Amino acid sequence: MLASLDRDDPTSLEIGSMSKAQAFFEAHLATLERAVDAGRTRDFWSPYPEVPSGRIYGETANAEGRAAFEATLGQRYELALTGIAGRVCEEVSPYGLELGITYEVPDIEGLIARMQAGMKAWRVAGADARAGVCLEILHRLNQRSFEMAYAVMHTTGQGFPMAFQAGGPHAQDRGLEAVAMAWSAMKQVPERASWTKPQGKHPALAMEKSYTIVPQGISLVVACATFPTWNTYPGLFASLVTGNPVIVKPHPGSVLPVAISVQIAQQVLAEAGFDPCLVSMVPDSAAAPITKTLAQHPAVKLIDFTGSSEFGNWLERNCPQAQVFTEKAGVNTLIIDSVDNLKAVCRNLAFSLSLYSGQMCTTPQNILIPRDGIDTDQGYLSFDAIATALADAVSRFLSNPEVQVNVLGALQNPATVQRIEESRGLGRVVLDSQPVEHPEFAGARMQTPLMLSVDAADREAYAQERFGPIAFLIATDSTEQSFDIAREVIAEKGAITLGVYSTSEAVLERAAELALEVKVALSCNLSGGVFVNQSAAFSDFHATGGNPAANACLTDLAFVSRRFVVVQNRHDVPAPVQE
Amino acid sequence: MLASLDRDDPTSLEIGSMSKAQAFFEAHLATLERAVDAGRTRDFWSPYPEVPSGRIYGETANAEGRAAFEATLGQRYELALTGIAGRVCEEVSPYGLELGITYEVPDIEGLIARMQAGMKAWRVAGADARAGVCLEILHRLNQRSFEMAYAVMHTTGQGFPMAFQAGGPHAQDRGLEAVAMAWSAMKQVPERASWTKPQGKHPALAMEKSYTIVPQGISLVVACATFPTWNTYPGLFASLVTGNPVIVKPHPGSVLPVAISVQIAQQVLAEAGFDPCLVSMVPDSAAAPITKTLAQHPAVKLIDFTGSSEFGNWLERNCPQAQVFTEKAGVNTLIIDSVDNLKAVCRNLAFSLSLYSGQMCTTPQNILIPRDGIDTDQGYLSFDAIATALADAVSRFLSNPEVQVNVLGALQNPATVQRIEESRGLGRVVLDSQPVEHPEFAGARMQTPLMLSVDAADREAYAQERFGPIAFLIATDSTEQSFDIAREVIAEKGAITLGVYSTSEAVLERAAELALEVKVALSCNLSGGVFVNQSAAFSDFHATGGNPAANACLTDLAFVSRRFVVVQNRHDVPAPVQE
Repeated sequence: MLASLDRDDPTSLEIGSMSKAQAFFEAHLATLERAVDAGRTRDFWSPYPEVPSGRIYGETANAEGRAAFEATLGQRYELALTGIAGRVCEEVSPYGLELGITYEVPDIEGLIARMQAGMKAWRVAGADARAGVCLEILHRLNQRSFEMAYAVMHTTGQGFPMAFQAGGPHAQDRGLEAVAMAWSAMKQVPERASWTKPQGKHPALAMEKSYTIVPQGISLVVACATFPTWNTYPGLFASLVTGNPVIVKPHPGSVLPVAISVQIAQQVLAEAGFDPCLVSMVPDSAAAPITKTLAQHPAVKLIDFTGSSEFGNWLERNCPQAQVFTEKAGVNTLIIDSVDNLKAVCRNLAFSLSLYSGQMCTTPQNILIPRDGIDTDQGYLSFDAIATALADAVSRFLSNPEVQVNVLGALQNPATVQRIEESRGLGRVVLDSQPVEHPEFAGARMQTPLMLSVDAADREAYAQERFGPIAFLIATDSTEQSFDIAREVIAEKGAITLGVYSTSEAVLERAAELALEVKVALSCNLSGGVFVNQSAAFSDFHATGGNPAANACLTDLAFVSRRFVVVQNRHDVPAPVQE
Repeated sequence: MLASLDRDDPTSLEIGSMSKAQAFFEAHLATLERAVDAGRTRDFWSPYPEVPSGRIYGETANAEGRAAFEATLGQRYELALTGIAGRVCEEVSPYGLELGITYEVPDIEGLIARMQAGMKAWRVAGADARAGVCLEILHRLNQRSFEMAYAVMHTTGQGFPMAFQAGGPHAQDRGLEAVAMAWSAMKQVPERASWTKPQGKHPALAMEKSYTIVPQGISLVVACATFPTWNTYPGLFASLVTGNPVIVKPHPGSVLPVAISVQIAQQVLAEAGFDPCLVSMVPDSAAAPITKTLAQHPAVKLIDFTGSSEFGNWLERNCPQAQVFTEKAGVNTLIIDSVDNLKAVCRNLAFSLSLYSGQMCTTPQNILIPRDGIDTDQGYLSFDAIATALADAVSRFLSNPEVQVNVLGALQNPATVQRIEESRGLGRVVLDSQPVEHPEFAGARMQTPLMLSVDAADREAYAQERFGPIAFLIATDSTEQSFDIAREVIAEKGAITLGVYSTSEAVLERAAELALEVKVALSCNLSGGVFVNQSAAFSDFHATGGNPAANACLTDLAFVSRRFVVVQNRHDVPAPVQE
């Protein structure tokens, strides 16, 4: 019925758009089906190679990506929009580079009206066409992974290899995961049904019914400074594939990665005949933030947010017109009870504590160790010996300048530098934070991790998030008390990761119980090439949505199924002839 | 790991419970799988016969059901509970009978502590065992459908046939639908996975991972007076099968149907070795309501509510610790544009307007008709002629005393009687509401529908819910204006049903667009044995969750998937040997 209506409209782009979007869908269907399957089996899988190699991406890909990034510097960034309400230009690379890119701020009311107008064609296109467009966007994002890596590096401060992986392929994985989960959820609703209810000797009652997936409305995705793509794509793509136009509000310090993403989305939407403004960017400045205004706009029905607990809680409580998905602060925790491979454990944790200078929502902050020491493969070792072993491992790991540059990266926010300074007094310094010079960028904000030893009684010090490269080695009465502290702190403050090291099955079982109780993902005895702060799309659920660190999970059914409703339409039909 | 832990506990009932619950699961697995399939194809299906026939339920079933109901009158109703904080005894049948049943109010803190203690074994049992228990509860509810019918009749005022169907099999269908949808959602998460990530020439990274479905916490289901089972079972069973203990807070006027349901649930839980208090009833009185206290309890993480918009909106905004699912008031609407079978349409609408005296969340209230008349199979008829035809059809339909008793039922709440009186002045009376005598119950509150003719300009009269047997025939400038009014009223006040009558494909298409726009279920040209106020489990989505009448849908994926989180547990394993 709808299609025939639209065919009568000579201005409609929908016929053309359907075929283009349908072509995208067919081109990417195998990937989509594989992604759905991966989300069900949860084995490793990714269609987007994570290695920044010329053999995979093309020998000129790196140079072209860098050139594309550099071409944006000092320029106006071009995006489709309706009416210009202002301009922002605030980004400064944590490596010291002044980016000088100017972004236009769209007129909000004009943009929302345009998005609402464009939403119908996007809804009418259907789940397959929308999935096709989303997969094409992801495909092109993948092709521009080098450019994205430079953009992510120079906004977040991540080292280049991490900026490539986390900002590129891993973020694309998370986007694809959201598309697959949402597409699969939509496909669980049939487009139509014949309903025939027997009436004994009388003719059956019979109806034809149709079911339409209807988007909730405008979706607002509030991006964070440190992972402007990885934490943004799940909400963006889950909303978009279910039919909702998406406004991305970047962090003022990390606009470019969002702008590139939005630009690609707009190009694909336009090629497929849809309004490019269905995905739009609304930047703001630190001095004149706009998120609250957007979040309380009556047309905004979905909000995804990554950032502070304070603002996340405000969104959860003050936007009753919207479904609100938040990832906030937490206190990630490690419990060390006993180890049978101390060197490997220390190596593993040295990487975890150093990676991106602890500016990850998954980095462990609190390391609980019995004050009387623990059993190890090197014999019974005191708390101090373990603390020293960990500190030495971090020092040794970071003694290589290339590792410093690639793993630590730079501190995204000057406030983090300040926080390291202020935290020194919170405990005994086991490993002091040292400034690091970057061989290429003299202005880089780089520091090694600060490791502090504190007592279990020093709750004020460790029982809150201290974002950045700051770790507490906490001396407890026993593993028993370590469990109690982990339970209490996570129940109150939340956590995205919990790690445990123990050679005792009973302790591992208790850790499993604790994880279920406070609803946090658990990693046991990691001592190889997987780290507690890593979360792999299609396999790892990132955050549970069940403790104060986040009210949503990347990506479960609840994350996608709340973004659309089903509207049915039914009418009588003659009863089928009975045999 | 958990099972071995529990086996070490001699007080654990879990081994026995697992096997009993597992037996229930196996006994009902075919039904469960058929229910999952029905929810996907959405054809008619029900395992619970809706006909109150002795040939189906046993020749003595009616007499036994009646006797069981009568045996509760004037007695203390026995349920498992921990600590008695008070008693309530307020139910008066809308048919005039004083029920005199006393219910104990549990001590809230004691009950919640007990539920939290019982939750672990219920979670550990797993999705299959929980589904088995839920299906056994539903099976036993079905066996007690006659007893339930008398209980529903004498609390809600529904006529016996409707009390049997809506209070019994149809409610059981809705419960089973929720179990099936939730079980299917849980099954989309694997219990474990092997994760192997190739590392080129290096050994692969390999992990074993497990995923546990973890309930949100205590679930509060706030039942309504008019449909104490139909509107309660979806939330109750969706929460229970996903592992959450459930407190049902009945309406003070309709406690018995909830008490019977809770008693059966407790019996099955206890038989399977679980704490019966995992499903508990907390009754209150009109003078001392307890819902707000329960709803804001920090342990309460899920709230299902059916009732007024005022209270539903309060719950949505004032219980940030919980996921809140509401069904509230709305203004259901019919648009009459043209008909090709006036008699059949009038017969159909006469039933819709009379059924349970309009005390349904799906009953049409506003009937929009062009003031200049419409095309019919009897020629062009004026607004007044259509109004008269509808009124005559209602009168004719209700001229049969048996129809009066069975279809109208009694008015549940004296406030509804009052509302009819107060509404008479809102328009021109087309059909006046008349008192009806019940042949068996002299004290029955029964009245025929009130039909008022108003002008489109009389917004004050019709643009709000006037619950009960009150319908407005609204004279509009045109079908165009009918659409506008429907759009505006539904956008502002919400609706669960929208009906349209038209012989024009273009008008039906516009109605379909309107339904998508304001997110309401649409029924087109109903003129046979299906009525706009009927909603069939497994096929019809009841409410969309997308307009002000409800923020949730019975039963979509969002309704079930928000009731649990997934907690993962992963550890390294040696890389698989490469070939």
